[in-house]
Amino acid sequence: MKKRYLLAPGPTPVPPEVLSAMSEPIIHHRSPEFATIMKEALDGLKWLFQTESTVMILTASGTGGMEAAVSNLLSPGDRAICVRGGKFGERWAEICEAYGISPINIDVPWGESVQPEAIESALKKDPTIKAVFVQASETCSASVHPIQEIASIVRKRDNTILVVDAITAIGVMDLPVDAWGIDVCVTGSQKALMLPPGAAFVSVSDKAWHFNEASKCPRFYFNLKKEKAKAEAGQTNFTSPVAMVIGLRKVLEMMREEGLQNVFARHERLADATRTALRQLGLRLLAVGIPSNAVTGAYLPAGIDGGAFTKKLREEYGVTVAGGQAQLKGKIFRVAHLGYADTLDVITAMAAVERGLRAFGYPLELGAGVRAAEEILFGNK
Amino acid sequence: MKKRYLLAPGPTPVPPEVLSAMSEPIIHHRSPEFATIMKEALDGLKWLFQTESTVMILTASGTGGMEAAVSNLLSPGDRAICVRGGKFGERWAEICEAYGISPINIDVPWGESVQPEAIESALKKDPTIKAVFVQASETCSASVHPIQEIASIVRKRDNTILVVDAITAIGVMDLPVDAWGIDVCVTGSQKALMLPPGAAFVSVSDKAWHFNEASKCPRFYFNLKKEKAKAEAGQTNFTSPVAMVIGLRKVLEMMREEGLQNVFARHERLADATRTALRQLGLRLLAVGIPSNAVTGAYLPAGIDGGAFTKKLREEYGVTVAGGQAQLKGKIFRVAHLGYADTLDVITAMAAVERGLRAFGYPLELGAGVRAAEEILFGNK
Repeated sequence: MKKRYLLAPGPTPVPPEVLSAMSEPIIHHRSPEFATIMKEALDGLKWLFQTESTVMILTASGTGGMEAAVSNLLSPGDRAICVRGGKFGERWAEICEAYGISPINIDVPWGESVQPEAIESALKKDPTIKAVFVQASETCSASVHPIQEIASIVRKRDNTILVVDAITAIGVMDLPVDAWGIDVCVTGSQKALMLPPGAAFVSVSDKAWHFNEASKCPRFYFNLKKEKAKAEAGQTNFTSPVAMVIGLRKVLEMMREEGLQNVFARHERLADATRTALRQLGLRLLAVGIPSNAVTGAYLPAGIDGGAFTKKLREEYGVTVAGGQAQLKGKIFRVAHLGYADTLDVITAMAAVERGLRAFGYPLELGAGVRAAEEILFGNK
Repeated sequence: MKKRYLLAPGPTPVPPEVLSAMSEPIIHHRSPEFATIMKEALDGLKWLFQTESTVMILTASGTGGMEAAVSNLLSPGDRAICVRGGKFGERWAEICEAYGISPINIDVPWGESVQPEAIESALKKDPTIKAVFVQASETCSASVHPIQEIASIVRKRDNTILVVDAITAIGVMDLPVDAWGIDVCVTGSQKALMLPPGAAFVSVSDKAWHFNEASKCPRFYFNLKKEKAKAEAGQTNFTSPVAMVIGLRKVLEMMREEGLQNVFARHERLADATRTALRQLGLRLLAVGIPSNAVTGAYLPAGIDGGAFTKKLREEYGVTVAGGQAQLKGKIFRVAHLGYADTLDVITAMAAVERGLRAFGYPLELGAGVRAAEEILFGNK
């Protein structure tokens, strides 16, 4: 017998009660019964996004939501800032290029947070820039960018919108879409939303809808305007991902029960404990700017290969953590603490890391990381 | 208590053992464990499509697969034939227009099958036509188009490919992709494949891959070339729909156990019984060309509104059948018999139809439709 623990930053574990809800017999996507479920799910998404705007449901992975934001708001020849602090920042630029939009790349070393001033000065230099594309949480570098500050810069400009990839941020950290002025916010099902992969969720501000009217990129499957009209009738433009929406309603109910600020506080606490524990073990953290509360990355000690390390954890201890991507491949590992994650998951992760490090000959005091995490997680209770 | 019966042409019921497989804990999409599942699922898709080509898995509804076929193979300014025998035929033309491709529409009255000669003469008239887009089974008109004949016309031409929407055809009727020369074949998860909505499956022939090389439509999320490379490594380009792929492996295992020709024969038998029963009740069938074995459509007797009829079946008897779309709205109803459908489902459907017709004052002999179905379904056994 080998018990399995999924501690990678997506897909994340789905709670048993959600799996159960999603296993109910399929119902028709144009039935009144489904429209009621859709409306509840859509209301819940507004609550989660902290917005009055309609949040659209797309049958796609998160990248489909990112593409929809580009192809529904801009036109070939437009210019847009892409903050590239990791693989997902690079993806914004790649999508722009695919649609004939010229990305103005602001490159940030992986693990750092972008300086809002860099965005401000790029916008001043080129007043024709239509959009700023950025990650709230860059999963591959376990870091966040300062969205509130960036939003306060962009919202002053009538001709520029802010588009945020919040795929590992929504439901993890406070990201009030309306209060901050995030024009487009994209997330996915398989992260803090605790659902299987397969759906993307996108909010669009009134300001951004004006950009939609002028946008000339070809689009059909990802048509946000049509999705908005359908969502307001409790439907989707094409066949709805029925089981996913049923699961969505259920997870939103669970999150509402916990309370939004409590959800954020839980992620903060788990992240803090993980970071402290890894530091206690003598590891260097990947994030040197603002660390993400969704996932923590750490460099492996010299001489330990990241591929071999994550393989040992997965195959011998049943624990799946993520390795590094692109230039970080083999050098780091990443432990997630988002979604259906709680106190004892951090303990599990830290114990597995201790065991793995020791197996590769790294000198450590067994229990040191776990104890550091316990001190933060258990407090006085 | 009201038991529910889903008899609409998609989404279709998911077998309990598949729901159960899909409820297993989520695993990571880049793990060796998942790659093994993916490879088995992809092998099964080749078997189902009767092709040696890679069948790609897209996280999208079937329409996403249709869009991928257009945007990955053609270029703005290209010309393409779109057979419009219903709402889904119109969708081909709409997708082409969205991508700057000029559709040459061959319009077919809803319920009729296209004449292959019409396609042949359009191709002769304009040798620059790059593609023929057609439905194998037009769900909204409950009819099929003669794909084998159309393929034999298109395969003679080096500069034209045949793209078939087989969303309600794959797993229903014999559609040997390689033997007939179907260049691109698209299907969806929520029809004969007995899965929830959320995935599309697309095969591409060697001939069509050459078109991909020349294609200049913008694309990013739907990138078939990248998906092919990933599929051959047991992955998808973006986060895989993990639960869906696990379900896919399971349904393909069930279909293999039944045998492909037996699957087709079952659909043929259920369709035949449904058509015979409805005719026995004095109803006029929608299909006047080749009827589809996925779904049967029938006109309601004069004076009975289709909306009220399907509502009564759904709300009072718990039976969901489909109404008509667009110009057929209110005039017809459609009973599906595809996917997880067997003998007694047809009996259920016919009994509900008899009950509904009688409730609306239509004179009929109770049991006449059911008996006609039984005679076909039970034979001498």
